[in-house]
Amino acid sequence: MIKINIYCVGSLKEQYLKDAINEYKKRLSRYAKVEIIEVKEAKVDETNITKGLNEEGENILKRIKDGEYLILSDLHGKEITSEEFSKSLRELIDKGISPISYVIGGTYGLSNELRKRSNDKISLSKLTFTHQMTRVILLEQIYRAFKIINNENYHH
Amino acid sequence: MIKINIYCVGSLKEQYLKDAINEYKKRLSRYAKVEIIEVKEAKVDETNITKGLNEEGENILKRIKDGEYLILSDLHGKEITSEEFSKSLRELIDKGISPISYVIGGTYGLSNELRKRSNDKISLSKLTFTHQMTRVILLEQIYRAFKIINNENYHH
Repeated sequence: MIKINIYCVGSLKEQYLKDAINEYKKRLSRYAKVEIIEVKEAKVDETNITKGLNEEGENILKRIKDGEYLILSDLHGKEITSEEFSKSLRELIDKGISPISYVIGGTYGLSNELRKRSNDKISLSKLTFTHQMTRVILLEQIYRAFKIINNENYHH
Repeated sequence: MIKINIYCVGSLKEQYLKDAINEYKKRLSRYAKVEIIEVKEAKVDETNITKGLNEEGENILKRIKDGEYLILSDLHGKEITSEEFSKSLRELIDKGISPISYVIGGTYGLSNELRKRSNDKISLSKLTFTHQMTRVILLEQIYRAFKIINNENYHH
């Protein structure tokens, strides 16, 4: 079974977000083994945000294996449609790449080291979302992608 | 107090979405009187989607007052950043426009009549979201917009 890792920063605070994540993890269990890996949120000093970003980036990089395929959710990444998202997931699966790993930055974004290490960068929207809500949006897109890949009906 | 209407199709099925909406309605109550107006979902015949769309469009149009300012959440609308979203909300408020009304289509989207009647069309993302999740995303953007308008800190 395909393995998908989602690296993110900090734990979810709101119960409704936890419930949403659990719902999509359950739905996705038919298609993939999805693991959400939460790393420690840095105590960010507003006068030195880079330091905090680097610390969170390091916490993620420590967990990533050599050669692990990494896709960042990044405001500066390329914007794609759900069909394109699905197509690129399918191509990775067809190449036998596993795990396929997504990274969602924290409150202040992503470190340069993470950007350098990444294999791909996608932007989910021009809008800024909370990084906690981004988790739900990304999981829903992965679920949607599998529905498209498998030619299954999915009403939105 | 500014009045904001959100017209949408059908009622929310998932408890976590209801909880998310209630949370943002509560947070927004400091800035605006937000009303969510749910119209009946049409029984859509897949061989004649336009008929269903028109029915849902009609259900929304019946509820809208003459001259009511209407912004559609529309895949074909213009994509904007959270800052632009906030700026355009502020401009409407400064002009004394009230209510400011947003429309989220149903499973199959929006009718042409609704598009013709609208004053503005915005796209929240190139990605397709469920229309139920779009409600949460839109409310969060409105909340974010008021935080920006009021120069208040809001960590994402």
